[in-house]
Amino acid sequence: MAGDPGREGRLMTFTAKAIGGFHIGGRMVELSGLPTYRARIAKAAPEFEIDPNGRFAIEQMYVQYTLLAEPSFPYPVLMWHGGGQTGATWEDTPDGRPGWQQRFLEAGFDVYCSDAVERGRASFARYPELFEGDPIFRSQQDAWGLFRFGPLDGFHTEHDKRTYFANGQWPAEVTDQYQKQVVARWAGHDAITQAAYDELVEKVGPCVIISHSQSGAFSTQAAVNNPDMVKAVVTLEPSGGADATETQMAALAAAGTRHLVIWGDNFDGHERWAIIRSAVEAYGQRVDKAGGHWLEWDLPAMGIPGNSHFPMMDRNSDLIARMVQQWIADTVH
Amino acid sequence: MAGDPGREGRLMTFTAKAIGGFHIGGRMVELSGLPTYRARIAKAAPEFEIDPNGRFAIEQMYVQYTLLAEPSFPYPVLMWHGGGQTGATWEDTPDGRPGWQQRFLEAGFDVYCSDAVERGRASFARYPELFEGDPIFRSQQDAWGLFRFGPLDGFHTEHDKRTYFANGQWPAEVTDQYQKQVVARWAGHDAITQAAYDELVEKVGPCVIISHSQSGAFSTQAAVNNPDMVKAVVTLEPSGGADATETQMAALAAAGTRHLVIWGDNFDGHERWAIIRSAVEAYGQRVDKAGGHWLEWDLPAMGIPGNSHFPMMDRNSDLIARMVQQWIADTVH
Repeated sequence: MAGDPGREGRLMTFTAKAIGGFHIGGRMVELSGLPTYRARIAKAAPEFEIDPNGRFAIEQMYVQYTLLAEPSFPYPVLMWHGGGQTGATWEDTPDGRPGWQQRFLEAGFDVYCSDAVERGRASFARYPELFEGDPIFRSQQDAWGLFRFGPLDGFHTEHDKRTYFANGQWPAEVTDQYQKQVVARWAGHDAITQAAYDELVEKVGPCVIISHSQSGAFSTQAAVNNPDMVKAVVTLEPSGGADATETQMAALAAAGTRHLVIWGDNFDGHERWAIIRSAVEAYGQRVDKAGGHWLEWDLPAMGIPGNSHFPMMDRNSDLIARMVQQWIADTVH
Repeated sequence: MAGDPGREGRLMTFTAKAIGGFHIGGRMVELSGLPTYRARIAKAAPEFEIDPNGRFAIEQMYVQYTLLAEPSFPYPVLMWHGGGQTGATWEDTPDGRPGWQQRFLEAGFDVYCSDAVERGRASFARYPELFEGDPIFRSQQDAWGLFRFGPLDGFHTEHDKRTYFANGQWPAEVTDQYQKQVVARWAGHDAITQAAYDELVEKVGPCVIISHSQSGAFSTQAAVNNPDMVKAVVTLEPSGGADATETQMAALAAAGTRHLVIWGDNFDGHERWAIIRSAVEAYGQRVDKAGGHWLEWDLPAMGIPGNSHFPMMDRNSDLIARMVQQWIADTVH
């Protein structure tokens, strides 16, 4: 075991040698021809002329890290968030319990927690001039339809009129608080996002990626792109698998990269999830067929019912964290 | 002294009991009447219908914290970034040295590092429907004109053709890397931003605020709004002071809140800074006159030349951090 995991709700101390953050990837671009205007952009300051033209950094990613003085596991864990999220996904749960960042540090893992291109501290870029299309903000209704907090017809704007799953692990009382984590995304940014993730893997070196939802596909792709660096991918309800040639699949298998896919509960009636799960399983079959390693955990089939799309925020987040830590310690060498 | 500060470039370990993040403030709003469309929003996933209507969280703030197992100072430090920045301001410097977050943890302070309303992990909201006006992205040219990396006429898009100050502490070679930290801001959000900052102060309790630039005005206002909670404001090149009645100024003085304002170098020819500095000094005179505590450090007059608008990123960032830590330890009780 990589370390002693904390007990439910209890905090354990950890000794860090470094905490910080950096930006990686991206490029400089120049904008011109936009009109200037005047605005007061700081409280108590006068109006100044604003020139929206000039040179800007775009397409960079943000990475935060906490490195232990004496990690007990040889590879750091890279935590990659899902669509409409940031690295805050891995911090406190919406009901204020310790998140996976804390739990993996307690267990002896160095942790890198990033904001993908366009999200959070990575920053979006001016649109439509630099980013094409509109930002896509996920509404609470849309989240309800995808994230399996309760039955599809169970949403109501008033919390006390909502229907949650009887067996649900989602902390229902803080669904509104969760919504504050949601940030905008853009369609069509797969290539630039993957490029920044790949650059992160190359900078960090041998690592384990823990990904969620949209970043599930980026993490399996990162393993294909750098099979010797990515020792394992643990992906929570991924949105898809990688694009890979047969040669790449063989290289992935030869490198011994491990894959663990984790699925929650209450998928009945969710057509989108049926499509996504079958695509992920098809990718898993390709990994298998190439002689690679692929494992799926269907949590309810393992006797753990009620998980939503966010096992790292659900009430049993500590249990799932311990299971993942144990699997990494047993499997990744 | 609150702890043993790290020596230049060297890291010291610290033992944390908790690391995490949360969102605070904000409200739920409902959007309707916008057309739906189809888009593929996750790599390897199919196209789904996008409905931009629904219920959204807006105006919240994001806060990250690292709490020590045994802090040596009784009050946590709240680090508030400037305009067009996020909490990343306080993490690694653009040239990869430890930032003030690390240095204050090493010195025994609990640290809260936030992203103001609309920035970074706090998220912006759909505009023009929910946020009025356009986002304002600061170009490299605009940054050059305000942040005193070099003479006003010293900018060139190619780094090796730029002129930096001969005495400059700014890490000139990473001016492009710095630009990756820049995020958009909006004009007209002073009240909602202040409300979220005030809510943070009320949640955390007695504290010291370290602010920069735009948040200088928010931090002096936070002290006026909660004088018993804000033990001290250390503000690096603030954009302005607070709005306060005479009664509030008297209460601020009675509470004993300390103010330390820090100014860098090379202000000659900067009309904007002349206006801002005289407004800040006028506010300082009001604090003084009310019997409050107000101190300004003019770094070059103290024998420390060459600081830019970012003393926490400049080459001598460790020195300035130690000076601030010493001042807090000596002054705030």
